[in-house]
Amino acid sequence: MFKKILYPTDFSDVAHSALDFIIRLKDAGAKEVVILHVIDKGNFDAIARYATKDILEIEKNLEERAMAEIAPIGERLQKKGFKIKILISRAVPFMEILRVEEKEKVSAIVIGSHGASNIAEIFLGSVSEKVIRRAKTPVLVIR
Amino acid sequence: MFKKILYPTDFSDVAHSALDFIIRLKDAGAKEVVILHVIDKGNFDAIARYATKDILEIEKNLEERAMAEIAPIGERLQKKGFKIKILISRAVPFMEILRVEEKEKVSAIVIGSHGASNIAEIFLGSVSEKVIRRAKTPVLVIR
Repeated sequence: MFKKILYPTDFSDVAHSALDFIIRLKDAGAKEVVILHVIDKGNFDAIARYATKDILEIEKNLEERAMAEIAPIGERLQKKGFKIKILISRAVPFMEILRVEEKEKVSAIVIGSHGASNIAEIFLGSVSEKVIRRAKTPVLVIR
Repeated sequence: MFKKILYPTDFSDVAHSALDFIIRLKDAGAKEVVILHVIDKGNFDAIARYATKDILEIEKNLEERAMAEIAPIGERLQKKGFKIKILISRAVPFMEILRVEEKEKVSAIVIGSHGASNIAEIFLGSVSEKVIRRAKTPVLVIR
C-alpha cells in the first residue's frame, strides 16, 4: 500500500513535514522511498535568460545545491532502514513527478502542500494540486 | 497515524475506492472510521425553491436515501473490525468536512477525488481540493 513511496521535495518546511510522515509510515509497511527534486525548468530558463554568468555554471551550481540538500534526506531515510533512490532533474515539476510515478511504479505519493502562494497558483493550482488531479496512485497530502 | 479516519462520501465510485483503501489501512493501525455524508445545502435550497412537494418531505426523502446508502458502508467496516460513527448532515460539503475533522479530532482524512467535473470546479476546485487546501490533518486522496 505504502511499500514504495514517491517523495517529491522542494526542500520547503511542508516537504520536511511530509518526510517526517514517511518515516512514521515504516510501521505501515513502507520499505522504499524515491526522493525526487525537480529544478523548475521555467525558473531555470528565466534565470538563464538574464544571467551574466555562464549558463552551464549556473546549472552546475543549482544541481550541486540540490544534491547538498537531498543527500542528508537520503541518509536520514537509510538510517531508518529504508531503501532509497535519489533523483534530481530539470523539468516541469508536476509533469516530472507524474513521469517518475509511472516509471518507478510507486505505490503512493507523499507530498507537502503549501496552499496557494501566488496568483498563478490560486487560479491554476499548486504543483501538489496538479499532481493530485492527475496521479494514478493514492496521494497523501501533508500540511 | 491513521488511527481515527474521517471518510467523507458522496456515494460515488471514487468514494467507494477510498473505502476499499481504508479497509486496507487496518494493517497500518486504522481503528475507527467516521463516515460522513453531506447533503449539499446549495443543491437542497435549489430543489426546495422549485419543488411542488412539501419541503419537509423532500428533506425526509433525501435523509432516508442517504441513510440507506450509508448503512451498508458502516456494516462493511464493522465486519472488518472497525469502530464506526455515522454522520449525515445538510451543509456546505467542504465546510462540514473541515468542521467534523476538528470536532472529532481525526488523525487523517481519506477522500475520493473526481477531478473537476464542471466549470465551477475547474476554476474554484472540487470539494476534495477545498478540503486539501484547508485541512489540518493529512489527507489521503484516492482516484
